[in-house]
Amino acid sequence: MARETVEILEVGLRDGLQMLDYVVPTESKRAWLEAERLSGVKRFEVASFVPAKILPQMADAAELVQTAKASDVYACALVPNLRGAEGAFAAGVDAVLVPASASAAHSVANVRRTREQMIEAVAEIRTLRDSLGISAHVEVGISTAFGCTLQGDVPEADVVWLAAAAVEAGADGVALADTVGYADPALVRSRILAVRAAIGDRLTGAHFHDTRGLGLANVLAALDVGIRSFDASLGGLGGCPFAPGASGNIATEDLVFMLESMGLDTGIDIDRLIEAQQCLASLLPEETLHGKISGAGLPRNFARRAAA
Amino acid sequence: MARETVEILEVGLRDGLQMLDYVVPTESKRAWLEAERLSGVKRFEVASFVPAKILPQMADAAELVQTAKASDVYACALVPNLRGAEGAFAAGVDAVLVPASASAAHSVANVRRTREQMIEAVAEIRTLRDSLGISAHVEVGISTAFGCTLQGDVPEADVVWLAAAAVEAGADGVALADTVGYADPALVRSRILAVRAAIGDRLTGAHFHDTRGLGLANVLAALDVGIRSFDASLGGLGGCPFAPGASGNIATEDLVFMLESMGLDTGIDIDRLIEAQQCLASLLPEETLHGKISGAGLPRNFARRAAA
Repeated sequence: MARETVEILEVGLRDGLQMLDYVVPTESKRAWLEAERLSGVKRFEVASFVPAKILPQMADAAELVQTAKASDVYACALVPNLRGAEGAFAAGVDAVLVPASASAAHSVANVRRTREQMIEAVAEIRTLRDSLGISAHVEVGISTAFGCTLQGDVPEADVVWLAAAAVEAGADGVALADTVGYADPALVRSRILAVRAAIGDRLTGAHFHDTRGLGLANVLAALDVGIRSFDASLGGLGGCPFAPGASGNIATEDLVFMLESMGLDTGIDIDRLIEAQQCLASLLPEETLHGKISGAGLPRNFARRAAA
Repeated sequence: MARETVEILEVGLRDGLQMLDYVVPTESKRAWLEAERLSGVKRFEVASFVPAKILPQMADAAELVQTAKASDVYACALVPNLRGAEGAFAAGVDAVLVPASASAAHSVANVRRTREQMIEAVAEIRTLRDSLGISAHVEVGISTAFGCTLQGDVPEADVVWLAAAAVEAGADGVALADTVGYADPALVRSRILAVRAAIGDRLTGAHFHDTRGLGLANVLAALDVGIRSFDASLGGLGGCPFAPGASGNIATEDLVFMLESMGLDTGIDIDRLIEAQQCLASLLPEETLHGKISGAGLPRNFARRAAA
């Protein structure tokens, strides 16, 4: 009997590296991508297209896209504006991810633009994509969709409104992100159902953090209401700037372990994925990696499957 | 509107301390219990009743029971056999917990008795309880209910059979324990439903480990199929002897954070519970504590409630 599939988007090369205070060499990023690709991971968020003087870590964004395409994996890039999208499309991405914060306070603080201005950017990027006659997707990631460190609660109505506005502006897909680790399983279920009621299957994925330990419980809650695409970062890389020592992203290897244990099909060979985590640890020896399965080891009765 | 309640059993004083290679002073145990009691925790597994020469850490079991009763909290103690139950009943426990492993291999390795012999012990303990005319509960904890490091898979039929045998032998309640951290949310749901089909509401609780990061996801899965009582250990104390550095028990403070965030009522004041975790850290400075919420801090919009 065919198992139900779940898609994983590895976001560590962008979300995990972005906060580091030193620049990781392109060769190291390539080695990471290659190790993880060999485990069966097929989708990567490889970089942000932002000016190199603002974020030197991402200066090699176009090279990373080319590496991914040469390896025949899906390459997504974060773009905060039209200029970023121009660079990403020129580099040949499969998708651009435009962040739009549901929290009014966070939007202004984080990208110095209002939510309405971010929706205008989505429309511009969609128009550009269409004018280029390319097939790259325009995805919108709704950050602070479950709460915000600046304003606290983020009303459900704001999230639903922003998701609908993103689709209206031309987004091919919308994902909900728990940017600051405020989500809980009950909120995850209610918010996903509310957004789906508004935009249907344009709601494509979810991005959870493990800052407060609920990352995988939130994934389970989202699975229960039909989400089948999740972001994660190898080794849980991705700091949480306001909580030193706390982890940010859920660890890809723990996520894959949970999904495969439940009988879902990620197409990923977990032994090789754990090897990729060890590769990452050697590439970034200064970083503390998170996640449990790499250290604890697989259950002896774990049903192994080859990478798809 | 009244919130649905969930019961927490703090097992750290027994399960958390048992593996340490030094004896924690009785006064430190009392300070831990008192700090956590002040947060609203009302149920404690305080000790094992086993010969002091076998487990010196638990030599003060009767004193701990008396401390708990003097503080008007529920005191449960682990008893591996009739002799242990005699001591526990004499000390005035509210409940004895008899461990019975669903894995044939683990049962013999861990307590040097077959599963059938453990069921005989349950019957003897029940008879003793009745003959004493006391109200203490006889609870059975089914260990390795979701898998075993020795034999791998533990068949569902074995778990159902053992749960039914325990009830037949006189157990007032049965809990399922993921002793080695092999459970996943799908297995949790299917096993709980299978056991409930056999013993109904005599299935009273669940005990999960976070060894492989799925502890709270497994709690969520169990909540979804009606479980309303969970074991946990403050600071996730409780080593996993076969996986150094890996955590064992789920952290009480993270569990309470998840449940309260979801709108469930634990009767526990999380700020005071985090203070109790800090108290524990100072009492056991050599131990690495686990759990996330103590370090990350509560969301600013967390709905605080006073201890019940």
